[in-house]
Amino acid sequence: MHIFNHKIRVRYAECDQMGFVHHSVYAVYFEEARTESLRGIGITYKEFEDSGIIMPVRSLNITFKKAALYDDLLDIQVTLHQPEGIRCLFEYETRNQNNELLNTATMELFFARKADLRPMKLPAELLNKF
Amino acid sequence: MHIFNHKIRVRYAECDQMGFVHHSVYAVYFEEARTESLRGIGITYKEFEDSGIIMPVRSLNITFKKAALYDDLLDIQVTLHQPEGIRCLFEYETRNQNNELLNTATMELFFARKADLRPMKLPAELLNKF
Amino acid sequence: MHIFNHKIRVRYAECDQMGFVHHSVYAVYFEEARTESLRGIGITYKEFEDSGIIMPVRSLNITFKKAALYDDLLDIQVTLHQPEGIRCLFEYETRNQNNELLNTATMELFFARKADLRPMKLPAELLNKF
Amino acid sequence: MHIFNHKIRVRYAECDQMGFVHHSVYAVYFEEARTESLRGIGITYKEFEDSGIIMPVRSLNITFKKAALYDDLLDIQVTLHQPEGIRCLFEYETRNQNNELLNTATMELFFARKADLRPMKLPAELLNKF
Repeated sequence: MHIFNHKIRVRYAECDQMGFVHHSVYAVYFEEARTESLRGIGITYKEFEDSGIIMPVRSLNITFKKAALYDDLLDIQVTLHQPEGIRCLFEYETRNQNNELLNTATMELFFARKADLRPMKLPAELLNKF
Repeated sequence: MHIFNHKIRVRYAECDQMGFVHHSVYAVYFEEARTESLRGIGITYKEFEDSGIIMPVRSLNITFKKAALYDDLLDIQVTLHQPEGIRCLFEYETRNQNNELLNTATMELFFARKADLRPMKLPAELLNKF
Repeated sequence: MHIFNHKIRVRYAECDQMGFVHHSVYAVYFEEARTESLRGIGITYKEFEDSGIIMPVRSLNITFKKAALYDDLLDIQVTLHQPEGIRCLFEYETRNQNNELLNTATMELFFARKADLRPMKLPAELLNKF
Repeated sequence: MHIFNHKIRVRYAECDQMGFVHHSVYAVYFEEARTESLRGIGITYKEFEDSGIIMPVRSLNITFKKAALYDDLLDIQVTLHQPEGIRCLFEYETRNQNNELLNTATMELFFARKADLRPMKLPAELLNKF
């Protein structure tokens, strides 16, 4: 299990007319944070995908407590769990610059061959990086 | 309880380099479908918001079974449940033009006063439309 | 030269905290309108791309006169010009439900082979559809 | 005239099925780069807007030379020109990590009162920061 923190500055285009980050945007933030956390353990997702493995999302659950606002500097905490078989669980917590917890989320991804989308286990050399 | 169906054509910009609709986009599709389902029971969300009530999202849960592809003509089925107190539950099922079930989701929203974001119950005249 | 009109309902997520459709979104609207206008002359862009031809954007120019608002029902008028060599020009005009002109745009695309991104002329059978 | 450089890492969700950053996304990148360049001269756009002034976009022109790809680390160069009356011109150049020029753009914005969207000149204290 690894825990990473990644900062994201909220863009103007990501806020809706309530002045809040639109709820759809967090999946994009989580993806950026997940990519950077993987980079932190030596996996560049781009190379990963170039090597013929993709990671489609199996499920996404977000619980919102408070909205993020334009220009907020968010801290996204990612918890990477050890993959189990074809699956890999990520947990997220989003906080703003005042350390207020904005939302929590879990996302389950799985490993699949890019060529035919067949689910697959991660090769040992990649698995060992987790 | 009301059930509505809404068609959405997948846009090019909504697909990622796997050729799939990006998982973040479904929250936007669900919102469009929800808006149209509310219009179907006589509630224009724009007027709703102009009258001083907003509906922030409390939680979002999506389970993905199969990806939507560019130019797919999706059918989003929305189930509107009767609001309970300040909360309102929506369920979604997305199917493609081959009637394959792509994903299912639940979303919990709540009613709040726009002025101060205070949770509130829906006025009777609006509640009666559900 | 062909002229098509396509209706798009503004989504909540597409509006920023000024309450306006974010200026980046029009390129997505134009793409949807262009796709539907091509469908109108018998070209499904998806099949087009599956056949090994892509149409990257070469330039985009938009002049904004008035903002579109949430829930507006926009009319996008697309003018398809006859391709000249590898290039193809599209013009757009966006109006709202009150027939107010919101913006005008021109977009130049070119035809390229998907395999190696090499610019190419359109095969005669496709060119004849314009 | 000020020149700023801002780095942006391309997100997965921003790439289309050609594997390219979708052309609509550059307007979002330019906005982020513009915000950071204004921060560099002591103007926080959030405070600016909170003080009752907004900056709608008047025109946007982009010329694309080469596509950005997933995970590219882009360098966006912003040239801020001295505002003239109600208008303000920004120029952009996007390069990738190999210093290849991907696109160039100009964007004209204007200053307006948030309350009634009336065009206005910038107060001297803000104008002096340019």
